[in-house]
Amino acid sequence: MTASPLAELARLLPSLQLRTEPADLEHYGRDWTRRWTPAPLAIALPGSIDEVQAIVRWANAHRVALVPSGGRTGLSGGAVAAKGELVVSTERMNRVVGFDAADRILTVQPGIALEAVHNAAREHGLVYPVDFAARGSCAIGGTIATNAGGIRVIRYGNTRSWIAGLKLVTGTGELLDLNRGLVKNSSGYDLRQLVIGAEGTLGIVVEAMLQLTDAPPPSNVMLLALPSFDALMQVFEVLRGKLALSAFEFFTDRALVHVVAHGAQKPFAEDHPYYVVAEFDAHTQGTQDAVLAAFETCVERGLVGDGVIAQSEAQAAALWRLREGITESLARHRPYKNDIAVRIGAMPAFLDETKALLAREYPQFDVVWFGHIGDGNLHINVLKPDALDDAAFVTQCEQVTALLADALQRHGGSISAEHGIGLVKKSYLGSTRSAAEIAMMRGVRQVFDPNGIMNPGKLFD
Amino acid sequence: MTASPLAELARLLPSLQLRTEPADLEHYGRDWTRRWTPAPLAIALPGSIDEVQAIVRWANAHRVALVPSGGRTGLSGGAVAAKGELVVSTERMNRVVGFDAADRILTVQPGIALEAVHNAAREHGLVYPVDFAARGSCAIGGTIATNAGGIRVIRYGNTRSWIAGLKLVTGTGELLDLNRGLVKNSSGYDLRQLVIGAEGTLGIVVEAMLQLTDAPPPSNVMLLALPSFDALMQVFEVLRGKLALSAFEFFTDRALVHVVAHGAQKPFAEDHPYYVVAEFDAHTQGTQDAVLAAFETCVERGLVGDGVIAQSEAQAAALWRLREGITESLARHRPYKNDIAVRIGAMPAFLDETKALLAREYPQFDVVWFGHIGDGNLHINVLKPDALDDAAFVTQCEQVTALLADALQRHGGSISAEHGIGLVKKSYLGSTRSAAEIAMMRGVRQVFDPNGIMNPGKLFD
Repeated sequence: MTASPLAELARLLPSLQLRTEPADLEHYGRDWTRRWTPAPLAIALPGSIDEVQAIVRWANAHRVALVPSGGRTGLSGGAVAAKGELVVSTERMNRVVGFDAADRILTVQPGIALEAVHNAAREHGLVYPVDFAARGSCAIGGTIATNAGGIRVIRYGNTRSWIAGLKLVTGTGELLDLNRGLVKNSSGYDLRQLVIGAEGTLGIVVEAMLQLTDAPPPSNVMLLALPSFDALMQVFEVLRGKLALSAFEFFTDRALVHVVAHGAQKPFAEDHPYYVVAEFDAHTQGTQDAVLAAFETCVERGLVGDGVIAQSEAQAAALWRLREGITESLARHRPYKNDIAVRIGAMPAFLDETKALLAREYPQFDVVWFGHIGDGNLHINVLKPDALDDAAFVTQCEQVTALLADALQRHGGSISAEHGIGLVKKSYLGSTRSAAEIAMMRGVRQVFDPNGIMNPGKLFD
Repeated sequence: MTASPLAELARLLPSLQLRTEPADLEHYGRDWTRRWTPAPLAIALPGSIDEVQAIVRWANAHRVALVPSGGRTGLSGGAVAAKGELVVSTERMNRVVGFDAADRILTVQPGIALEAVHNAAREHGLVYPVDFAARGSCAIGGTIATNAGGIRVIRYGNTRSWIAGLKLVTGTGELLDLNRGLVKNSSGYDLRQLVIGAEGTLGIVVEAMLQLTDAPPPSNVMLLALPSFDALMQVFEVLRGKLALSAFEFFTDRALVHVVAHGAQKPFAEDHPYYVVAEFDAHTQGTQDAVLAAFETCVERGLVGDGVIAQSEAQAAALWRLREGITESLARHRPYKNDIAVRIGAMPAFLDETKALLAREYPQFDVVWFGHIGDGNLHINVLKPDALDDAAFVTQCEQVTALLADALQRHGGSISAEHGIGLVKKSYLGSTRSAAEIAMMRGVRQVFDPNGIMNPGKLFD
């Protein structure tokens, strides 16, 4: 008579927290996608790197699949456990490990929330510049797994730019201490880079060294209403040339309708097809003069239908809310999310083609666009009509995503800008990566995880 | 009767330039290291990606090793061909392929010189911010192969930060078009990152998309003389806190002796143990006031023995020459170069230990230090006494490098900050990367180059 693998794990690691209550299985088995029914074997909540290594060795011995799990705010199903996997939650590994003032490096455990990182950085007079709306609940490990972007990529880049080192437990249970905070290190392949964006398929990140930086100078915010996407791209050119931009975010009239219905204040009396929230440095009289000059240039060229520059911090926050409140305002409509990227120069042609495609294929659906122009990142949210059931809605959406993926391939884009591939976009990966690239990725995965226990079924089979 | 592999290559690709003259074999078979006797089979100078792919397929069929070759300004032996390899020179693939204004991407062939890239960027009112002294002769492909750093990493990061995409011909002859200029692309492993710094062991970079950026604001330069390394670290803290630094470079009294003997002007009447060249934004009265205030703070704290702020562009260039002229001033002494990195916070302790080590082991040698404090990067050049022959000198130096590698390992550093591992540092790789990491790297190399034809013997066996 042999014990079950789970009993064996409990025996091996008597102090390991293991949960098997149905409520826990459901809670820890899903992320912000709601398409799969959670069905994990159990939830492990390790408290140390040693425990993570022991779990991975046990999983290899018993061929149990593992799903690394942070804040489960992901939108691609990367943290879904629907096939009897053991969820390895980093929830208890959520501390700041240390701060190095000379190197400006904050070392953290993977389960710490992004907002807690922001707060810890602020205590040292510095900032961790990656930021997005889920900051309060997402875990830093998840931001590494997806190379999270967010609202200030235009100035600061993605998560990748801020990871000075990380510790990874590989699919065989080896602990790799990658890059160790060095600025320069030309000593072979930078495996740290491979782990960033790997969606937990190469191992479990058990510690990260975050590069902090100076707080930016005081900024201000303007909201512009625009007659066309073409005008919007021209405004981007003007502002990028004259101002130090830290964000340039757009949304459509439909997005405004939803966010206003959700409680935000309507900014202008009239309606306009496009809106932009632009954030920029405005710390001296010189920069404030440049802002006014740039704004006037846009008005003179007829690019702007209406506009406002925040006159107070409260007004700046209100303008930001119009953009940052969109996702929450759409949530009750259970949107099907496309998170795509093209090169900046390819956006107008891609948008024209895609708008026509969506109007043709989704005439009955409300489609809400928003995104990050400076990064070539468009979020296309298709809202579920109340009358349609979930499964039928997703099926219809996926048919169109296949067409969208074709368009992306022709325009040289990516099926996922920042959410990741996970389960949701897996069948479209070939639109973005060639067969030869996927073959290389499969080979690399095999090197890190020869028995295929790390988040199997995610990213690619 | 079968044709030789080389004859077969000539038959397969009648228009391929192939050279076998002894002068060419010698010229293309070495880099700036002078330790190995060049002995390539031949030199191929492909003119297109197709030709590169055909060469790689031929090499696989005949099991001929290939050495990718750019400007051969490398200092680690990465481009040395001493074992009958075919050198694949990118010298003829040296054009700008295109410029995309919206994305600010300059697409280039791999053989273009860094300085030509700077010039092309300037034509578009932008800059490519990677820069170092070999700019006139190094090829962009080589800067990618080593993830080149240079003099402005403190502000702009390494080459890695500026590669928006690259095309790679893998070890099997497959062409991968990696990332294609996207700012955001969360679609699986970022294989582009793996290629950057791989020293030509995963394939041949045949095209690169370089991210350009705004020209920096006008800057100025100061030279400081310092009584100790401890004072130097404190000055770094003061200046980093008060100024927008773009460079913070140090050198020792011995470096100054050599660069002055080589024609540079002695900056101060008295001698000091350490010197710093700091470059910083100084475009408004406010920033100029901050510079003076920072300088005065350093003087008041007794951190600075002497100092000068450039009053003209000519003076700024003269101050830079004191730092940038060092490598050339040492060349006639055939220095043994150590290019190491530690975390910034680890520098003082590492430097103390290493100075003691070198004084004990090299009492008879002239040792010249310089480097990039803001990056934790120290260049330790040991000069060959005229009386000692090359081989004996290298043997003595390598014994000490083994001790240095031990110290680095204890201080968490890297045996190569920016030169790469190549042949020169191969036996010390284990001081910087764990056995488990090297095993992963070996596995990854196997995925990209199963027959081991890409730069074999470099980086690791």
